[in-house]
Amino acid sequence: MTLLQSVRNPDDLKKLAADQIPLLAGEIRDFLVAEVARTGGHLGPNLGVVELTIALHRVFDSPRDPILWDTGHQSYVHKMLTGRQDFAKLRRAGGLSGYPSRAESEHDFIENSHASTSLSYADGLAKANALMGREDSTVAAVIGDGALTGGMAWEALNNIAEGKDRRLVVVVNDNGRSYSPTIGGLADHLATLRMSQGYEQVLDLAKNAINRAPVVGPPLYEALHGIKKGLKDAIQPQVMFEDLGLKYLGPIDGHDEQAVEKALRRARDYAGPVIVHCLTQKGKGYPPAENHEEDQFHSLGAFDAATGEVQAGKPGVKWTSLFSEEMVKLGAERSDIVAITAAMLHPTGLAAFAEAYPDRIFDVGIAEQHAATSAAGLAMGGLHPVVGVYATFLNRCFDQILMDVALHRQGVTFCLDRAGITGDDGASHNGMWDLSLLQLVPNLGLAVPRDATRMRELLREAVAVDDGPTVLRYPKTPVGADIDAVDRLGTMDVLRRAPHGGNSADLLLVAVGPMAHMCCEVADRMADHGIGVTVIDPRWVKPLDPALVGEAARHRVVAVVEDNGRVGGVGDAVARTLRDAELATPVRTFGVRQEFLDHAKREDILAEMGLTPQDLARRLTEVVSEVADSTMADEPAT
Amino acid sequence: MTLLQSVRNPDDLKKLAADQIPLLAGEIRDFLVAEVARTGGHLGPNLGVVELTIALHRVFDSPRDPILWDTGHQSYVHKMLTGRQDFAKLRRAGGLSGYPSRAESEHDFIENSHASTSLSYADGLAKANALMGREDSTVAAVIGDGALTGGMAWEALNNIAEGKDRRLVVVVNDNGRSYSPTIGGLADHLATLRMSQGYEQVLDLAKNAINRAPVVGPPLYEALHGIKKGLKDAIQPQVMFEDLGLKYLGPIDGHDEQAVEKALRRARDYAGPVIVHCLTQKGKGYPPAENHEEDQFHSLGAFDAATGEVQAGKPGVKWTSLFSEEMVKLGAERSDIVAITAAMLHPTGLAAFAEAYPDRIFDVGIAEQHAATSAAGLAMGGLHPVVGVYATFLNRCFDQILMDVALHRQGVTFCLDRAGITGDDGASHNGMWDLSLLQLVPNLGLAVPRDATRMRELLREAVAVDDGPTVLRYPKTPVGADIDAVDRLGTMDVLRRAPHGGNSADLLLVAVGPMAHMCCEVADRMADHGIGVTVIDPRWVKPLDPALVGEAARHRVVAVVEDNGRVGGVGDAVARTLRDAELATPVRTFGVRQEFLDHAKREDILAEMGLTPQDLARRLTEVVSEVADSTMADEPAT
Repeated sequence: MTLLQSVRNPDDLKKLAADQIPLLAGEIRDFLVAEVARTGGHLGPNLGVVELTIALHRVFDSPRDPILWDTGHQSYVHKMLTGRQDFAKLRRAGGLSGYPSRAESEHDFIENSHASTSLSYADGLAKANALMGREDSTVAAVIGDGALTGGMAWEALNNIAEGKDRRLVVVVNDNGRSYSPTIGGLADHLATLRMSQGYEQVLDLAKNAINRAPVVGPPLYEALHGIKKGLKDAIQPQVMFEDLGLKYLGPIDGHDEQAVEKALRRARDYAGPVIVHCLTQKGKGYPPAENHEEDQFHSLGAFDAATGEVQAGKPGVKWTSLFSEEMVKLGAERSDIVAITAAMLHPTGLAAFAEAYPDRIFDVGIAEQHAATSAAGLAMGGLHPVVGVYATFLNRCFDQILMDVALHRQGVTFCLDRAGITGDDGASHNGMWDLSLLQLVPNLGLAVPRDATRMRELLREAVAVDDGPTVLRYPKTPVGADIDAVDRLGTMDVLRRAPHGGNSADLLLVAVGPMAHMCCEVADRMADHGIGVTVIDPRWVKPLDPALVGEAARHRVVAVVEDNGRVGGVGDAVARTLRDAELATPVRTFGVRQEFLDHAKREDILAEMGLTPQDLARRLTEVVSEVADSTMADEPAT
Repeated sequence: MTLLQSVRNPDDLKKLAADQIPLLAGEIRDFLVAEVARTGGHLGPNLGVVELTIALHRVFDSPRDPILWDTGHQSYVHKMLTGRQDFAKLRRAGGLSGYPSRAESEHDFIENSHASTSLSYADGLAKANALMGREDSTVAAVIGDGALTGGMAWEALNNIAEGKDRRLVVVVNDNGRSYSPTIGGLADHLATLRMSQGYEQVLDLAKNAINRAPVVGPPLYEALHGIKKGLKDAIQPQVMFEDLGLKYLGPIDGHDEQAVEKALRRARDYAGPVIVHCLTQKGKGYPPAENHEEDQFHSLGAFDAATGEVQAGKPGVKWTSLFSEEMVKLGAERSDIVAITAAMLHPTGLAAFAEAYPDRIFDVGIAEQHAATSAAGLAMGGLHPVVGVYATFLNRCFDQILMDVALHRQGVTFCLDRAGITGDDGASHNGMWDLSLLQLVPNLGLAVPRDATRMRELLREAVAVDDGPTVLRYPKTPVGADIDAVDRLGTMDVLRRAPHGGNSADLLLVAVGPMAHMCCEVADRMADHGIGVTVIDPRWVKPLDPALVGEAARHRVVAVVEDNGRVGGVGDAVARTLRDAELATPVRTFGVRQEFLDHAKREDILAEMGLTPQDLARRLTEVVSEVADSTMADEPAT
């Protein structure tokens, strides 16, 4: 039995002698590399927090002391130390989630992996502890330096500072990079710190205990004290942790487990809000991951553990690559096009644009709100910003898109990667909200390309709009083959045309973006059974082309298929459009059940919901036949 | 002609001698009090920025130098100095907007009055200036200390600090209160500053120019320098303006126009990002507004300019008062109920709860994201938080409600005041998004009370739910008379029951909340013309009670009336529910056009959209008759 296997829970961990910890840490790293090599997952972040996680579980008493992870992709070691060492089906149906999961363990609190939330949860939990007299509970939140650039984290710190007597430890896990190297004034400052400090320093200005600190003698104390009481506020009335009343410990070498333990014990015993600043290295201990320039080992598919060579992914062109290439071309054609990323330069495909036009790329940190509104400012200044962002993270700037971009009619293009069901990363990563959310926004145009040709075409149409926001959304799955249109109706492409027996054909199938491939297959299957199906790709799903109404009127049934939540999506928009036109043609809408979905393979999730060509063809055949029956019943018997 | 009348544009203002400014300031204050007394509007914030606004327009060259207001309700003086002195129809159709308006003037940039956006716009505009070589343009953003507690502002500062050479001046208008006194560590710190500093101090640590500062001699410089280079980062590695690389000027007496001008000139000439910290007093110069404890003069209706006595508003009970009273009762009954406000203690009606249970109220600052997620934390800790917030500001925490509250199935109740069309304050204040937005959120219950009895009843039902978020929404308009139910169907109330001739009646009218009053009037009008109308109030519009389907099936037409955008609201939800049940009954949905609406009286906006009893009765009568005709046409001739 390995040492790791002997640790079945945090109590076992606490019993280990200090000199056993390096051995345990080594076993954990070997385990992580071997397991993630097989299943894929987040490797770099977890290699970076091995000692930190061990120290947390040796100092705190989870779950009485809640340990919160921000973001949750750094919780693999936490899982291993809280009774979960079967990683065989990581991120697969029935296996461990790639994030904390309340269903998995009482040690897990936050499942969500949208960044910068942990300090707000921690503030709430600490307030509840105080109100309910749970004096034996300390809340610990681990937040990355990247997540700290998100506005929510600042809102929380401002509030945490109010609760001087609430037991709360904020561990800043500072590895100097979120996905991309972390940017901004904060990052510059942390970088200075990392270079200038190699040992633990403990100072407590907040409680005037500075003269107890080990490295500051009385004269300096006097000077500082004088500054503090007299001029300091005038010199530095800036908002900072100290001025907020937060005690600070650090910086601490996050790979020196004993040093981290020591700092955490002090922080825990302080009985008030404390920041513990740990310096860690992403990918620590696994050379291929330690210094990968593009941070490929942040999150990846299966790879060769010995060499670090990543296995080829699914064959086919990636949407991200199409976006990347087209942006470089557009950048050459139009000097007014600039790009914005929220700490996702490589994952969104904007790295090539950044390399080609280094003055025209803005990485704003994990700060989607600022991404959207600073884009509105850039547009007011005469530029056309393209914001590359994952679809699920767009939720973070709904109000900014609505009020700051759309109300002000600014030409900003948002390109949503990972739209639709992504599967592996669970509920918080599925991009199943955007097609609904964006329907609410006046003045906004929303396009969904079905293939590579449409991706290029629609991106160009989008950046040509200068009086309101435009949005493109595309999935993580590879790009399917081009589907040529057989006809064009306004802005819509007709992909299959049902033979018209008389005035009307059986079914009009509205295919949203890449669902066109499934819909064409459905149409072909149904045609084999004598049912006439017209397939339309609206290309722009908002606004819908008015020609849709006339086309719908020439069919007995209309159906919409989208890779998005069924509530409020394109299906509802088509139905409303026909209803408002007082067309009685029955409409059926197919999409994702409006639920938080457990992690599983995308294909399995879609199949379970009947979103396969077979199931859709069967269900639509039934609908067409029911409608035909009821129509016949209504007609006078002749 | 008054001095004020002689100032038709900023150029006129620049020509005035310094000793004329106090006279002008006095005239502006008189004008503000007299005009706002007649029309209502934001008084306190504008009285506080008279000198600041004069100084801004004397120093900067608007619109070449954009001046951005955060929030925009402090822009009245700016309007007066940029050619807009006709306040007779302030906030009325055809009159001046109560916020900056791009349609009104080239001097206006940001119309939106959701807080904390200005620094992001400013960052974008400054980036555009830099890229396009507009070296003669400096961007000035005025942000309140309240707005500075919003996370977006921090995201922006982190980015602004990156652009060391971008010309950008951030004016912090610090009056120590947003609506409520500003809270948090930031506010505590600013308060210390206000007490300890009464004169302008200029220090520039960022550029190591501290030895040029007037009040710091060489020895202190050495000490500070030593700290900065050696220990400071260890002592204060906190993120602060200085460490972010931002120059700071202040604090400055914001009512000393010459001092403000001087600081702004220095800031403008610095040619990089600078913070100018001005201390102002809300309501300055008008005694009734200067010290009103509840800050009633922040925004109000018409009042007596001589006495400051506020005219009685519309007669009738306010929803806010009902909420306020019921919360005090619930607080007494359940010690686990706590309340959260985002800097709106009085406007949301939570002041009474705060007074009764001072330990159980949390004012988080203008920080809706933190409000929602810290509420999730409180709920995880065993409490039931009630978050009081204006409907329009809920957009700011959509992702937090979705991911942090609903995904984690935490019992948090959101009470949305000012829901529906509010009118006067324009597009950014209409609460016309929430009923659509919240439809997307799994596990969430959404209730709309129609009258006082239902308000009390539904609030109690909502706080009884402990496994997911619940939401109540209610308008600014007075509460109408109670409408008793004639029947109950599941969770729905039947308010009028159409006489059933045989199997079916003419019309099922689904009335969302207070629209019940209009719907009952519509039903009565139609009944007079022999049309049978059933009126249902679903009470919970999400989830919809399944009994709705059976009830709909017993009517020839279904119509939904809601005070919310037509896209994705309750109308779409009812239509989808019936469609999914394969019911062919025609549905018509009535609500607010999905547009950004110009400021105007609520009644006029609704009337223009046909949302009056007369128009609805007429349109619905037409629909019923058309459907009857087409049904007859379909039936076999007998």
